[in-house]
This record gives sequence, structure tokens and C-alpha cells, in this order.
Amino acid sequence: MNKHILGIDLGGTKTSVSLANQHGSITCAERIPTTPAEGIESWLQRTCSLITDVLNNHDISLADIDIIGVSAPGPLSAKTGTLLNPPNLTGWVDMPLVALLEKELGRPVIMNNDANAAALAEWMFGEYSGADGLIYLTMSTGLGGGIIINGNMLQGVTDTAGEVGFHVLDVNGQESPCGHRGSFEAYCGGKNIADQLRHAITTQHIETSILTHANNDPAQIDMRCLLAALKEQDPYALKVWKTFIYRLAQGIGNLITILNPEVILLGTIAIHAGDLLFAPLKKQLPQFTLKPALEACRIAPSSLASNIGDLGAIALGMDWLKKQ
Amino acid sequence: MNKHILGIDLGGTKTSVSLANQHGSITCAERIPTTPAEGIESWLQRTCSLITDVLNNHDISLADIDIIGVSAPGPLSAKTGTLLNPPNLTGWVDMPLVALLEKELGRPVIMNNDANAAALAEWMFGEYSGADGLIYLTMSTGLGGGIIINGNMLQGVTDTAGEVGFHVLDVNGQESPCGHRGSFEAYCGGKNIADQLRHAITTQHIETSILTHANNDPAQIDMRCLLAALKEQDPYALKVWKTFIYRLAQGIGNLITILNPEVILLGTIAIHAGDLLFAPLKKQLPQFTLKPALEACRIAPSSLASNIGDLGAIALGMDWLKKQ
Repeated sequence: MNKHILGIDLGGTKTSVSLANQHGSITCAERIPTTPAEGIESWLQRTCSLITDVLNNHDISLADIDIIGVSAPGPLSAKTGTLLNPPNLTGWVDMPLVALLEKELGRPVIMNNDANAAALAEWMFGEYSGADGLIYLTMSTGLGGGIIINGNMLQGVTDTAGEVGFHVLDVNGQESPCGHRGSFEAYCGGKNIADQLRHAITTQHIETSILTHANNDPAQIDMRCLLAALKEQDPYALKVWKTFIYRLAQGIGNLITILNPEVILLGTIAIHAGDLLFAPLKKQLPQFTLKPALEACRIAPSSLASNIGDLGAIALGMDWLKKQ
Repeated sequence: MNKHILGIDLGGTKTSVSLANQHGSITCAERIPTTPAEGIESWLQRTCSLITDVLNNHDISLADIDIIGVSAPGPLSAKTGTLLNPPNLTGWVDMPLVALLEKELGRPVIMNNDANAAALAEWMFGEYSGADGLIYLTMSTGLGGGIIINGNMLQGVTDTAGEVGFHVLDVNGQESPCGHRGSFEAYCGGKNIADQLRHAITTQHIETSILTHANNDPAQIDMRCLLAALKEQDPYALKVWKTFIYRLAQGIGNLITILNPEVILLGTIAIHAGDLLFAPLKKQLPQFTLKPALEACRIAPSSLASNIGDLGAIALGMDWLKKQ
């Protein structure tokens, strides 16, 4: 018999509700703004109202939904279904989201962080589906990760397995607002790089087209400006990129050494950068890891790209169904 | 019905043959020297002769043996049952050990590297048996590791998962004969530390009781000399130990960050050093990893200690039986 999975992809900017069958085939996905500042009650009401609309449009009742999968920003506790203190959802501290949704909707809800959900989606639906060890790196504002081993998410004893962005690449290295000096995220997280660019460009008065691409407003500097300058062979952008790639190679090399996965997939920044990233990365990697492990590891941009949020939420539901 | 498992623990110095039932209860364990220089044929003959003796003493015929588990030094391919080029077994290159033993003994043979086998033994028989994520670090001549997730060895796509000693702690760091500059093993592998001590003491004429404990012969310097000098508060030994602990904390911290295991167990050097190692290690760790993950992780000396080789080989056999 056909089963119905409802997916909720909760992000700092938008919330998406999707509907799929037990094979992950998505019938529809609808979006509303998250606007976290309005508080959880407002979000709950608007999201549940969107869910009602989606179900009505497809002649499905809530009672027909077998499981609701929620992909949400970390840090969160999957075991207790609680958002801890996600930086993108200011004020939503220790929020028992799963309990709130279950109370409101009367159906079982399963939640995990967006990086884990994305990794699971890649393992289930992506180009490298079924891989013998798969790591997904978000490479967006922060540097989160999800690890799939034997088809299962590596959750960890306190739900933080896969938080590879905090592993330390250099004890004397780059300072980071997260307090993890020299961490993988300090070197390769999008927000940290933008902050470092902004600081260097404003204090050292560096001439670079990065600033031009930010409309000459340092506050607007982000990874897109860096990539645009890079495509023009801007000397400062090239220098910054070289360090970025070197540290990305060290971090990814360490993951290959420790986990020996078949596939590593990179999200947002890597998708935008394309070969500007993958070509030099592959040149730098051999110095950092074991040759047979590297040769066996396919390193590529996420194959699901912008669809990955909805698919992640649905994948969580499918995984739950499989285990019943 | 009772099943019989034969274990072979192949080391650079000694080979041990043990006999156990399907619950891992070991009836006996007998040893012979490995003497790898005599070649694989000699070893095969002597080992099979020991196996015959052991079986005769217990009125068991080879036909009664359900599986033979072999714990052997890496690097090896568990998938093809081949020793690749183990540094402790000079000349045993690309040796199809599993096929050779199966031909000689007529029973199924399963082989894995000693670090993986030890990790599995700790997970099955140790004080932290059944842990939700367990990492075993050999901490002997080299720094090998074995990772158990959901009760399964993490093997990796090319059998090198868990080779944590090669992950890079400092790209500009300590050189290492393995070619992995600044690797965890370069800082914390017993042989590398002894080599660094020998080099520093002979070239810089450092006054230290490390040399006294080596009978004033630099060639005899090893980790035992360092530990003995440390117990006497030898200033140079204290300085070297401080760096060792700092890097050990970074390496272990990275494993906690990435894998969030419930237990990390440390072998040889850590067993000898005891609280000289664990007390300062626990002080250094918080700067390198996530607080909840660290608080949930028990870090302790191997609970099986000198018995771990035999138990590792038997554990491999039990794991194989379980999966039939």
C-alpha cells in the first residue's frame, strides 16, 4: 500500500513543506518565509496552515500521513527532538520542536540536522546512492557535515557526529568566532572567510575587485564576491583562494584518512565554484592522505543541489519507515 | 550446538594460536616465535603444526573448527585476505595469507588488521562492551586505530578506515619517516618519539635521565626510558611529554569531534603510562572538541590489555559466525 511522507525543511530564511510517497517521489513542495523573529508560535501556525493547504490540494487527510520528517538547523538533539540554540533561528532556544509538531498535527515526527538529512538524501536519491561510506559537507555559511555508513546516519552518542567543521587543522591557526581556533570551519566556512576578507580589506586597504563586487560596501562582502573576483584572476582573491583550497584539502584529506569513504559531496560554495574548486583541490589532496583511499574516493559537488532540503526531510521520514 | 573458533594472532615477534567457543570463551592459547626472516613457508608449517597440537590436546579435529580468525599487522587487504607490506614482517609482500591458510587447513579463514581486531574485541568482551561508538588506538610502535559503529567494524572502501595515525595535525609540523608530515603518528607514535629523542639527545647533547635508562646507549632509547625519566621528574622528559600530551589531545579531540563516540580506548603506551597520560590528557582535551561530546566520551586504557591479541582474532571469528 502507498504510504505518505510529509517533509518540513526548516531554514533560517524559508520553510518548505513537501509531500512524497515511501519511495521518495515528491508530489509537491510549497514554501513560506520562516521569519524566526516572530517566534515559534507564529511559525507553527503558518506551517500547519500550509500543511493543511498542501494536503487539501492532494485529497489527503492528516491521518493518511505515516511520518513527518523535519530537517532543521543545528545544533539540535535528534534523540529528544529539541532545537538547542541554532544561530540561524535566534531566540529558538531549547525548543522541543518535535513535541510541538506532534501535538499540533497528531502524527509521528522525526527530526535531524540539515547536514545529516542532506547526507541521507544523497545516499538515497543522489548520483552516488548506495555508496560504501558517504560524507556530505554543507559548505555554506558554516561547515557542517553528515556521515552515512552502511546506509545509516552516523548520529553519535550526543548527536554531534559529523560536525567535522570543528576538527582542528592547526592549533596555532586562524582564530574563529566559534572559539575553535584553527578549526576546519575557521579556514573554510563561508561566513568566516567573508569576515576575514572584510577585516583584511578594510584594515589593510587592499586593492581587490572583491570590494567592487560588493558594491564597494565591505558589509556586502561574501563568498560570491570572492568567486567573482577569482574568475577575473584578481591577485588578492587568488591568494586567499590558495589558502582556502590548501586547508580544504587538509580537512577533506583527514576525513578520507579516518573514514575511507567511497564518496564525499560538497554543497553550496563548491556548487557555485565548480572547477575553480575541484581542480586545485584534487591537486593538493595527495599530500594529505593515503593514496589508495584517495584514489577510491569520488569527490564531487552535491548531485541534488537546490532540491536537497526537501529531499533531506523526506529521506528522514523514509529512513524512519524502513526501521519500523 | 557448540561451535569452535580458532584464533591466530600474528605479530612481528610472536604468533599465538587460541581456541574458543562461539561466545569467545578461550580454552587455551599457545605461542611460537614468528621469525618472519625465515619466510612464510616456515611460518605456515610451524603454525599449522602448533594448531594440530592444540586441537589434539583438546580432542577436536580440524573439521570441527567453524572459522579461523586471523589478526595481523597492517597494511593488509581484508577483502582479498592479503598482507600488503607490513613493516613488522619484512619481505612478506602481497602475501595471500588467507588463501594459504585455507589451502593448508581446509577451513574458512577471516583476516583483519590488529587494530580493527582489537577494537572489535573491546566492543565484544571489554569493560565498555556494546558501547555506542568505540575507537581503539594501538599506541605502540605506530599509532593505528579501529572504529566500531553500531557493533560493526568500520572497514572503509579500501580497508583503511581507522588509520587515524595518518591524519594531519599540523601541515608545517613534525617530519615523519612515513612521509606524512605533522601527522598524528609523527607526534604520538612510539617509534617516532623514540627517534626524535635519540636525534635530539645525541645532536644537542641534552642531559637527561632518559639516556641513563637506555644504559647510556642512544640506540636503546624507547618509550619505556621516557616514562621512567618522567616518573623522576626529569626536566627534558617533562618537556617532551607536554608536547606529546598536547598533540594526543588534538588528535583524540578531532576523533571525538568527527565521530562522537561513547568510548575511546588506548593501548600499550597508555597502559604503561597510566595517570601520567590520562590526567594531563583530560586537562588538554576541552580546548580541542565540543563540550557535550567530550563529556559523554569515556577515555580509558584498554580493558583487555595483554590478552587483546588473542581476543581480537577470536572476535573476528565470532563476527563472521554472527553474519552467516
